[in-house]
Amino acid sequence: MLEPVVCVHGGAWDIPENLWTDSIEGVKLAARRGYQVLDDGGSVVDAAEAAVVVLEDCPAFDAGKGSVLTYDEEVEMDAIIMRGSGLEAGAVAAIRNIANPVKVARLIMEKSPHILLAGEGANKFAEAHGVKQVDPDTLVTPDARLELEKYKTFNKAVYSLFNKSDQKGCDTVGCVVVGSSGATAAATSTGGITAKMPGRVGDSPIVGAGAYADDQTGAVSTTGHGESIIKVCLARHIVSLIEKGQTPKDSIRDSLQYMESRVKGFGGAIAVSRIGQVATHFSTPRMPWAYVKARQLHFGMHPDQHCTEEL
Amino acid sequence: MLEPVVCVHGGAWDIPENLWTDSIEGVKLAARRGYQVLDDGGSVVDAAEAAVVVLEDCPAFDAGKGSVLTYDEEVEMDAIIMRGSGLEAGAVAAIRNIANPVKVARLIMEKSPHILLAGEGANKFAEAHGVKQVDPDTLVTPDARLELEKYKTFNKAVYSLFNKSDQKGCDTVGCVVVGSSGATAAATSTGGITAKMPGRVGDSPIVGAGAYADDQTGAVSTTGHGESIIKVCLARHIVSLIEKGQTPKDSIRDSLQYMESRVKGFGGAIAVSRIGQVATHFSTPRMPWAYVKARQLHFGMHPDQHCTEEL
Repeated sequence: MLEPVVCVHGGAWDIPENLWTDSIEGVKLAARRGYQVLDDGGSVVDAAEAAVVVLEDCPAFDAGKGSVLTYDEEVEMDAIIMRGSGLEAGAVAAIRNIANPVKVARLIMEKSPHILLAGEGANKFAEAHGVKQVDPDTLVTPDARLELEKYKTFNKAVYSLFNKSDQKGCDTVGCVVVGSSGATAAATSTGGITAKMPGRVGDSPIVGAGAYADDQTGAVSTTGHGESIIKVCLARHIVSLIEKGQTPKDSIRDSLQYMESRVKGFGGAIAVSRIGQVATHFSTPRMPWAYVKARQLHFGMHPDQHCTEEL
Repeated sequence: MLEPVVCVHGGAWDIPENLWTDSIEGVKLAARRGYQVLDDGGSVVDAAEAAVVVLEDCPAFDAGKGSVLTYDEEVEMDAIIMRGSGLEAGAVAAIRNIANPVKVARLIMEKSPHILLAGEGANKFAEAHGVKQVDPDTLVTPDARLELEKYKTFNKAVYSLFNKSDQKGCDTVGCVVVGSSGATAAATSTGGITAKMPGRVGDSPIVGAGAYADDQTGAVSTTGHGESIIKVCLARHIVSLIEKGQTPKDSIRDSLQYMESRVKGFGGAIAVSRIGQVATHFSTPRMPWAYVKARQLHFGMHPDQHCTEEL
């Protein structure tokens, strides 16, 4: 029996100061919630889903409520959930009018023969399984409107979103869990990037890019510049290094360095190993994270910041 | 300077005898066409695209014309193209009414900041870039209608498609290329699986699952049971083994064995290394393949079959 861990992140990017408090409070709440579910006898997948639902419901993050807007001023969300036993996965891409995309991802994993459903098909599946549609306006925050307005006003090419100095709105959320028996799960959810083209699928719903969970190794959730993460299969890359015997911390750091050297991309990740190690790391200015292990709550957001609290 | 190679496949599955001739002729034509493009001074990406266009246009394969039907009786196609220099990629998922999805994938790679566009968004992008829509009926063959009819008549659950004995319609197509300078490209295109749910995204348009190309290592295109391929990141897995120094042949074989042992999935792949090695291998009953190297055309379809012809 090992100490179970529930670890979450709120996205790797240059978070402005006005979001610092809400971001930290959000990840702390989500980690506590996930751990509570595990403590109450829930599965690692239950815990990962519950933690991500908290983050999707928090408007400070670009996922669920608080998602950024596409160029056509709509919310289109991506999410994934993965169970490390059997490498099972479910995911949605460019889904609309749903409060908690991670719940639909889980339904796909458990109630369909497929892994990824996109666009209208994802919405049809959700409807067929009793998931309530919400008014799209309930997902949109004034900040998301302002952000898109700013991009349109300055008539910036979407390309300009992607250099480090101007990286915005990559506050994807995610969770990794390892239970006392070594079972693992991972989940990631996002609204994507401001002014993205309609139908754009980022890294988050891609197995091996936005998340990976394998009970033989560990679980990972990533965040950052989606197209870069896709190109290097970041989540699978991190898991491969854990598989080789590296610590989760070194595995994330080496993989982020690999991504930077190969495609000049920045991001962050959280990881747990099947033996109960946990790590968070990022190459962006900030990434809010929190985890619970041995009834201690750990959290931080700035590089090298590590705070602890009794649960 | 090394001998350039253009290698194609026409899908790993239990191909019925009535399709044998067309399948072999199709892959031979596509390999010749891709090699011709390279010979005429085209890039590795030009060659991969041209070869896949031949396969998409051939009704014997489940890609472009000849695509299978969704449960809602529509054609929804996935495709990807990847340039090994810079790990650049473009892909479409669940795109409709397009004769050559691989061409749209290339436009996304070259004319957008994104990698993957799905559904309506992919169609909108295609339209904005002057790609003509086609009447969906021109993509549908009598065989595709019959296949769906059969599934509906027997009221089979979609689940039943996925065991080896009953695996149908996974005749995805693909191409890998290595040029004389060691530049690589990969492309994959598919109509997916019969009776799939609308919006289902398979492995083909996923970087690291359906294809991968890295000039530091080599290029891979995969085919088979999409959800299994996604779970093990099959294309990236094969490239990782080539990176470790294994031959492309051993890398494909070991990766297919890994997929079978981890998730009971079957499939096939083609690969080239940056030093000009080429390999094809499959764990299904058949996979039509062909390649041109040193002005010799090599081809086969059954296990251990290997024929050669002067170009």
